[in-house]
Amino acid sequence: MSDYDEDNIFAKILRGEAPCVKIYEDADTLAFMDVMPQAEGHVLVIPKAEACDMMDLNGAMAQKLIVNVQKIARAVKSALGCPGVMLAQLNGSAAGQTVFHTHFHIIPRHDGVDLGFHAKEMEAPEALEKIAEKIRPLISETTA
Amino acid sequence: MSDYDEDNIFAKILRGEAPCVKIYEDADTLAFMDVMPQAEGHVLVIPKAEACDMMDLNGAMAQKLIVNVQKIARAVKSALGCPGVMLAQLNGSAAGQTVFHTHFHIIPRHDGVDLGFHAKEMEAPEALEKIAEKIRPLISETTA
Repeated sequence: MSDYDEDNIFAKILRGEAPCVKIYEDADTLAFMDVMPQAEGHVLVIPKAEACDMMDLNGAMAQKLIVNVQKIARAVKSALGCPGVMLAQLNGSAAGQTVFHTHFHIIPRHDGVDLGFHAKEMEAPEALEKIAEKIRPLISETTA
Repeated sequence: MSDYDEDNIFAKILRGEAPCVKIYEDADTLAFMDVMPQAEGHVLVIPKAEACDMMDLNGAMAQKLIVNVQKIARAVKSALGCPGVMLAQLNGSAAGQTVFHTHFHIIPRHDGVDLGFHAKEMEAPEALEKIAEKIRPLISETTA
């Protein structure tokens, strides 16, 4: 898992070579809407580091990542009004990882609503943008 | 989600009032074998803080937690020889959370092996101890 492929889609997004519906960015982290959401409001948070997975990511970057994951999860929960939030972080194709750049999934959960674990439909950027507009203003600038 | 119940099972484990098959402990974190594993080698990592979920956990504790999650995930992967590792962190009953003390699941994944998502069987402590004995010596004392 240490062979980082610079042409993976998240690397392209980080270089501005591929589009994304961004919801948050700082020096070390980028967050954007998942284009194949397993639930409405499904967000991805990635470090600005060449690491295939969490085992490859250095501790300092992991620490920057997790506080942003918390911050964005709080905003997603408020924006979507969902009682539950699942954080999932998949390492290796055996675990279901499909893009080999470390990422956290933030997935809103509602009572009695099953996850669409195998999303195959691309969501329209316009639809994602509408959800992003609800989330962005709720992302706190302060850290707990 | 801010009403922390001091009688939850993980609080009891932290106070030494309930048993666990421990694999790692430091000033801020405890890791132990899940008694209802979804896969062999399923480990839980919890902060020593009264926080129902990741949204409630303060950033400094989350940072201490995540580097230990990384460290233990590396050890679990080596010990179990699994190609994949899933990290899951569930917030709220709608997300499947059943113990309301923040916890990360570290779940080994193998190609073509589905997760037993609804484990209902308690694993015998002796069986968990055998797996724990493989993991413990592989937990690195250093942080990447």
